[in-house]
Amino acid sequence: MADAEINQVPPSEETKAEGEETKGPSKSELKKRAKEAEKAKKAAEKAAKQAELEAQRAAAEVDFATEFHGKLPLNQSQTRPRRPRVQIASLNPNMDGQTVLLRARVQTSRAQGNKMVFLNLRQRIDSVQALLTVTPEKVSKQMVKWAASLQDESIVLVEGVVKKSPEIIKSATVGDVELHLSQIHLIAGLEGRLPFTVEDAARPDTEIETNEEVQYKRVLLDTRLNNRVIDLRTQTNQAIFKLQHGIGHFFRDYLDAQGFIEIHSPKLQGAATESGASVFKVSYFKGSAFLAQSPQLAKQMAIAADFERVYEIGPVFRAEDSNTHRHMTEFIGLDLEMAIEEHYHEVMELLDSLFKHMFASLRETYKNEIDTVRRQFPADDFKWREGPEGTLRINFRQAVDFLVEDGVPREVLDDINTENEKRLGRIIKAKYDTDYFIIDKFPMELRPFYTMPDPEDPTVTNSYDFFMRGEEILSGAQRIHDPTLLAEKMRSKGVEPESMAFYVDAFKMGCPPHGGGGIGLERVLMLFLKLNNIRRASLFPRDPKRLEP
Amino acid sequence: MADAEINQVPPSEETKAEGEETKGPSKSELKKRAKEAEKAKKAAEKAAKQAELEAQRAAAEVDFATEFHGKLPLNQSQTRPRRPRVQIASLNPNMDGQTVLLRARVQTSRAQGNKMVFLNLRQRIDSVQALLTVTPEKVSKQMVKWAASLQDESIVLVEGVVKKSPEIIKSATVGDVELHLSQIHLIAGLEGRLPFTVEDAARPDTEIETNEEVQYKRVLLDTRLNNRVIDLRTQTNQAIFKLQHGIGHFFRDYLDAQGFIEIHSPKLQGAATESGASVFKVSYFKGSAFLAQSPQLAKQMAIAADFERVYEIGPVFRAEDSNTHRHMTEFIGLDLEMAIEEHYHEVMELLDSLFKHMFASLRETYKNEIDTVRRQFPADDFKWREGPEGTLRINFRQAVDFLVEDGVPREVLDDINTENEKRLGRIIKAKYDTDYFIIDKFPMELRPFYTMPDPEDPTVTNSYDFFMRGEEILSGAQRIHDPTLLAEKMRSKGVEPESMAFYVDAFKMGCPPHGGGGIGLERVLMLFLKLNNIRRASLFPRDPKRLEP
Repeated sequence: MADAEINQVPPSEETKAEGEETKGPSKSELKKRAKEAEKAKKAAEKAAKQAELEAQRAAAEVDFATEFHGKLPLNQSQTRPRRPRVQIASLNPNMDGQTVLLRARVQTSRAQGNKMVFLNLRQRIDSVQALLTVTPEKVSKQMVKWAASLQDESIVLVEGVVKKSPEIIKSATVGDVELHLSQIHLIAGLEGRLPFTVEDAARPDTEIETNEEVQYKRVLLDTRLNNRVIDLRTQTNQAIFKLQHGIGHFFRDYLDAQGFIEIHSPKLQGAATESGASVFKVSYFKGSAFLAQSPQLAKQMAIAADFERVYEIGPVFRAEDSNTHRHMTEFIGLDLEMAIEEHYHEVMELLDSLFKHMFASLRETYKNEIDTVRRQFPADDFKWREGPEGTLRINFRQAVDFLVEDGVPREVLDDINTENEKRLGRIIKAKYDTDYFIIDKFPMELRPFYTMPDPEDPTVTNSYDFFMRGEEILSGAQRIHDPTLLAEKMRSKGVEPESMAFYVDAFKMGCPPHGGGGIGLERVLMLFLKLNNIRRASLFPRDPKRLEP
Repeated sequence: MADAEINQVPPSEETKAEGEETKGPSKSELKKRAKEAEKAKKAAEKAAKQAELEAQRAAAEVDFATEFHGKLPLNQSQTRPRRPRVQIASLNPNMDGQTVLLRARVQTSRAQGNKMVFLNLRQRIDSVQALLTVTPEKVSKQMVKWAASLQDESIVLVEGVVKKSPEIIKSATVGDVELHLSQIHLIAGLEGRLPFTVEDAARPDTEIETNEEVQYKRVLLDTRLNNRVIDLRTQTNQAIFKLQHGIGHFFRDYLDAQGFIEIHSPKLQGAATESGASVFKVSYFKGSAFLAQSPQLAKQMAIAADFERVYEIGPVFRAEDSNTHRHMTEFIGLDLEMAIEEHYHEVMELLDSLFKHMFASLRETYKNEIDTVRRQFPADDFKWREGPEGTLRINFRQAVDFLVEDGVPREVLDDINTENEKRLGRIIKAKYDTDYFIIDKFPMELRPFYTMPDPEDPTVTNSYDFFMRGEEILSGAQRIHDPTLLAEKMRSKGVEPESMAFYVDAFKMGCPPHGGGGIGLERVLMLFLKLNNIRRASLFPRDPKRLEP
């Protein structure tokens, strides 16, 4: 009807030149029609909108709470209302009655009838219970139904009132309050099903084994690593990686105070260094490069370049086909090197103080996180000698004697293998009640070419390993700073000095006596917490069979 | 004579069975003779030793100071006298008259006649003048001659008395005292000649160009990098790498206080990510791996894994055959990623505060080092807007307009190339007197697939670059956290989502809105100090033509 009326409008002035219009409508006529069509379209749209609004109004009569729940549009930074949001960790009974806004994961939800739903909301290692109850004019039945239907691990934005809880809620880490929700919106949902729930992933093996009433799903390590993003969401893993951060932090903290500077040395090397067998080869434009197995050469060159005291935190690469609980093809090395004034024990003692600083700081700073990890991975507290007697230090020969006394045949002890390392750890724990000790004076044949020989006995070296719970976590030594002796030792170990000329040359230009060590970050973390597999101490671990995710 | 006497000794009891001796001396006779020979040898050795000692005593009459100078045996940690040693930086006029012991490099030595030698002793960025003068019973002529003959860059252990200097010694950084030496020993000498002196390496280009009286040796960058260990010993380089340390330190410091945790993501990747063209390929056991071009995917997965706020400092690898002043094939990325609550400007503003914190902290903490670098690389102070007006932010479109106003044809400005970037830097410096600014809202076609589109204009994105002295030092954005939109954008940029399933899957399991950025450590260092070539900001730089040292 409206269309017909519009067509009745008299022609405008622009349509006067009719002589030109023998083969169809004139240009102006076409323009007019287009205009009319546009008008018609707008009118139709208006009508449709009207109908939609009416439908919405009708729906609202049924659900008065549509604006209090539902899926939010994709956040593309459309608006910035600057409404403060809180952290679950900050909630406490003193906030009783306060309205708060927060973003969290739905760890689990449990409907009670069709009028109430309990949600366990999670942020990193913290969780709180939230409650949504049908309330006139505030919370509708539809709203409760919708909230109850949210998939576990959905990310929601909730508004609610903090209520002091009459009794401690055990299922939440913040158990003395709960949230009475007034709004709940979906920020990000899931596409598809979870490979496993975060609750299943967080359950200690002991609980799975001892609880005979419930058949729990055990999530195997490989399944976890294949779906690492879900696995990492457990409170255990959130805590583990806070401690990983802590180790790096305390390492640097201590060394900064001792006059060290942080360096960054290249991982791409022109030649296979240290030991050609276990080095990864890289295509480098028209030639090849190799991935550094450690910053050893670079940090020694930094000493020859007068930096005096340097450390580095960075990836090291080992092309070893070792599929064990404690080997990865890529891990983080905490390396340091320093000039020595008189004796390499200056380095060894600094490293020892560094470890004691790290252990004590972890225990003090991350008590809550350590307890969180313990719930999934039960373990005795890590023990070290903190008193004036100092850290236990023994020589390699003495370590061998301990093992022989314990029944290991001396003939097999040219080297101490992993099994005997652990055995030694147990012997020392029983004898000295410590999980941490140092072995000094390793035999020459067990150490790399750059290791300084002992001044009196050329079959042993000025080198040491540090141990935690019977596993090596640091290897270090005084290095050879004399180019002639260095070249000689290289040849005796089958390395041609010419193949590493840039390294040997550094010592020809004068280098002070120096020493250092390299620590495996993930090993320290694994052993401090007793995680039993190094992959648990690495965000996205790499081994001969795993390059993803 | 003694030998003859020994032969006269009567046969012992053991030589009685003479009947057996028809064909030659008996066994016991042989034994006896051997014994006698041994005795004779020992006596001869004793005599020789005697003679040697007498010769030494005679020599000592000539040089009474042998124990006060000379080459020390190779330090293999023979002894540990625990004699305190001092740092040159700690010397001051209040110590006048004190005897000190220190290890240092001989930067230069200058004999005055045969009775006196001046040494310039250096430790890291500090130096002091030392003086050795012939003194009865203390310093011999031989001692002075020996000290004067020490090669530059030798490492010595000196003992001496601190003397307040009557006038400031300009050639030393600690110019208000000098050391009057009583002992000087060589810890490590040189094998061969220095490729260039540290003094030559430290000379500013301006001095070489303007001083017409002296023909200085200019040390080219390539020569420096080939002999980086010597080059790094300049006070300039010692200072540069203290600032590098500082940048990392202040970066972490600031972020730690903002609730971030440090992560370490793998550099070995199963698939070529982001852009296949510029990725290094690695032989990985029987297959292949690729070196990460950035921690982009891992840090986003860390957000999907609920870490909320993460940063990483680590190497990134770019297989780009770019031989420019600002490209390397390996550099250190300072990366961060964080969940956002409302708007991506939360990230942009945090990054801005981070930079201002770094700039101010560098200026405060490293004044001495900045001045040291300035002497070799003259530059204006780095300027940023510190007042309440805040950092200058412009949109990409506005940046283009500035360039057009300045005479650049609009047609060439689809992207802003390096040359126009610098031009823009000059325009903005002239207009706003700042070396630091932000460009927001880059066009979609210039950004990677994971960049969130603007909510209103799909041709632009929620992304930004930060600039220092007209060069980009940070690139960042809000990322796409929705798997459907992500897959769509991947396809539109020619990346198959299936080829990066582990990454896309992370978002299917629910991921909060997030954003971040990546900073080039060496670029920040180069531009803050105006070093003009990024290789000067890297300890051992790597480019398409350089893999050593």
